[in-house]
Amino acid sequence: MVYQPAAGARDLLPLDVAKKRWIEDRLQQVFHRWGYHRIITSTLERMDTLMAGEAIQRQMVIQLQNSEDDELGLRPELTASIARTVVTRMAGVTYPQRLYYNANVFRRTWESRHNRQQEFYQAGVELLGAGGLLANAEVLLLVADCLAALGLRQWHLILGEAGITRSLLNAFGANLQNKVRTAIAHLDRITIDTLPLSDELRDRARIMMDLRGPSAEVLEKVSSLQLDEQQQQAINNLKSLVELLESEKKFSLILDLSLIQTIDYYTGIVFQVVNDTESQARILGQGGRYDQLLGLYHPQGENIPGIGFVLNIEDLYQVLLSTGQLPQTTPASNWLVVPETPSADAPAFAYAQKLRDSTHLVRVEMDLLRTDADTIRQYARDRGIAQIAWIKADGSPKIESLR
Amino acid sequence: MVYQPAAGARDLLPLDVAKKRWIEDRLQQVFHRWGYHRIITSTLERMDTLMAGEAIQRQMVIQLQNSEDDELGLRPELTASIARTVVTRMAGVTYPQRLYYNANVFRRTWESRHNRQQEFYQAGVELLGAGGLLANAEVLLLVADCLAALGLRQWHLILGEAGITRSLLNAFGANLQNKVRTAIAHLDRITIDTLPLSDELRDRARIMMDLRGPSAEVLEKVSSLQLDEQQQQAINNLKSLVELLESEKKFSLILDLSLIQTIDYYTGIVFQVVNDTESQARILGQGGRYDQLLGLYHPQGENIPGIGFVLNIEDLYQVLLSTGQLPQTTPASNWLVVPETPSADAPAFAYAQKLRDSTHLVRVEMDLLRTDADTIRQYARDRGIAQIAWIKADGSPKIESLR
Repeated sequence: MVYQPAAGARDLLPLDVAKKRWIEDRLQQVFHRWGYHRIITSTLERMDTLMAGEAIQRQMVIQLQNSEDDELGLRPELTASIARTVVTRMAGVTYPQRLYYNANVFRRTWESRHNRQQEFYQAGVELLGAGGLLANAEVLLLVADCLAALGLRQWHLILGEAGITRSLLNAFGANLQNKVRTAIAHLDRITIDTLPLSDELRDRARIMMDLRGPSAEVLEKVSSLQLDEQQQQAINNLKSLVELLESEKKFSLILDLSLIQTIDYYTGIVFQVVNDTESQARILGQGGRYDQLLGLYHPQGENIPGIGFVLNIEDLYQVLLSTGQLPQTTPASNWLVVPETPSADAPAFAYAQKLRDSTHLVRVEMDLLRTDADTIRQYARDRGIAQIAWIKADGSPKIESLR
Repeated sequence: MVYQPAAGARDLLPLDVAKKRWIEDRLQQVFHRWGYHRIITSTLERMDTLMAGEAIQRQMVIQLQNSEDDELGLRPELTASIARTVVTRMAGVTYPQRLYYNANVFRRTWESRHNRQQEFYQAGVELLGAGGLLANAEVLLLVADCLAALGLRQWHLILGEAGITRSLLNAFGANLQNKVRTAIAHLDRITIDTLPLSDELRDRARIMMDLRGPSAEVLEKVSSLQLDEQQQQAINNLKSLVELLESEKKFSLILDLSLIQTIDYYTGIVFQVVNDTESQARILGQGGRYDQLLGLYHPQGENIPGIGFVLNIEDLYQVLLSTGQLPQTTPASNWLVVPETPSADAPAFAYAQKLRDSTHLVRVEMDLLRTDADTIRQYARDRGIAQIAWIKADGSPKIESLR
């Protein structure tokens, strides 16, 4: 019988793991340098926890059987789990808290009516307890530093502001808001032309649809809309952020005040990290500010501002494959230790251990198959092993270099 | 509303993660030094894959809803997944293959009739394509090196041989074998006294129950049983292994030929790693040889010998907690960078980045809250931050040391 992997499952062989670790180790280095600490949450969560932020739809969650009172699912993302953990298990900590994760997530996907279970790897951060310009700038500059650490230069950031976009949509009244929102999200000009709107509102909808491009242009266009004091303040904050980011010149920036997600928990800036080296745009990561989310999980409903982002390891992997930076082989052993006779077994293990007990990493493998010398040499060459230590019964080694 | 974690779920806060990583990093170092390479398999598996070795019972697996054609579950251990991966995805590789894993596993547990979903962490190895003394010795000496790397000295190895034990049980005939097996497993002398056995077989059962203790004694006792040629050969092999291990004097060894697991796939040596520092025995890990398992997964039923072990990270963690070696705090940031005015924001980010871009790891956090100088100093002291860099609008830093 042949046992297949589960549909949609992926196994990572040693070279795949080396590539994945290359990416993750670099990201982790950056997170540590920015003062972030790793958190690991439960892979299984109650469905109500996962869906509290209203950004997760039930059908995308892989649910468990027989979980009695609790409906349980596999986490499709980390932010809900971290929000739950922080407010229920880290009461009394001082803020800001800088947390990062490097974890697998699970989603049910639908392909030609069949559903598949897919496992993805993600790395990201949550910066909690700090609102305002500096926290927003930190997270965006941290994204840029992550991509720099991976050697990725050709990417751009699409930056929106969920609070402003939502507030601009308020002008359309409850009954038309969703239609306008959907039309803008799909750049559907015909609907905007035909909806029962006043001339002023139709102009506003058309302008909103065009609020995407170089920051100076977009900020000028949005100023042509009639803004209330709060909206003006939000635009000023966005302007300060854009100025700070553009003074650093780390990446190119597209401002997009028409950036509207499906229902989500973002309350301030929202962003996408987009790769520029492929013919089709690939979103490498995304994030945003969520100042109301932690309150949903807090026992007394207390709000703690938060902002975070996630990078998709699979997408980074795909882009990095073409740059030739990822490891091309797994590391070879430095030594092959061969007991020449059975009475040399114990001295051979002892010799191998002496080689391993070096302060720097020395990879030492034992010959286990007791084949002839030529076969052993061929094995060592095939595996790229540099040196063979032939051990006699008295423990004396004969060193043979294969290079 | 308060969102609880799923029953049985555990979240690891940054200090917990630091402790877990302390253990895992040391184990990984040892695995690398012995020439092992990491493999990562899918968290989700088909139920038939998980249960093929007959060591996993359906009720202990956490199963998924709605998986259409395939029944899917969360892996309760790694060996089945690695066996499946190797034979289906690594065809054509040369042997031996040295693989290790560091992964989470999931089990359904039952407490006062309620079931809980539990997530555990494990690290272990599978050494594939090598039978015989050297491979057995490698895996046991590797276990010892792992525990040495963790600073654990007070532990012992219980070593059995599933092949010998099974073969000794054959003498009892099909109808009584399971009863004798169960009685021996539970040290149930009354059952042995009352089963309808010949005097010779009753003596054999009593001797088998006593085949546990110092290796010399056990090997002498087992020689008093009438052994066929194959059994004698297996005993000789075991003796060679014990001699090799005892010549290394790395750990104390108890030989236990009554060591009988529940239904399992082991065909040769089996072992448990037992901690000695607590009043109650704690099994830190276990393993054994499985020379028939890969054949179950192989398209042509080809057998590839294998041996492996698993260490339970949670149990290691519990034992290490009392030794005081695990990290007591998360690493503090080295620097807090404070923009003195909003116009110092950009230079402050640039200064922080310069500090971070050191070849060694320098942890630098930005002050995000724009509070007064005393509050900032207090925050830095509370977090154990050694130095503050106050940045002016012209970019000039004023360094303040807090120690």
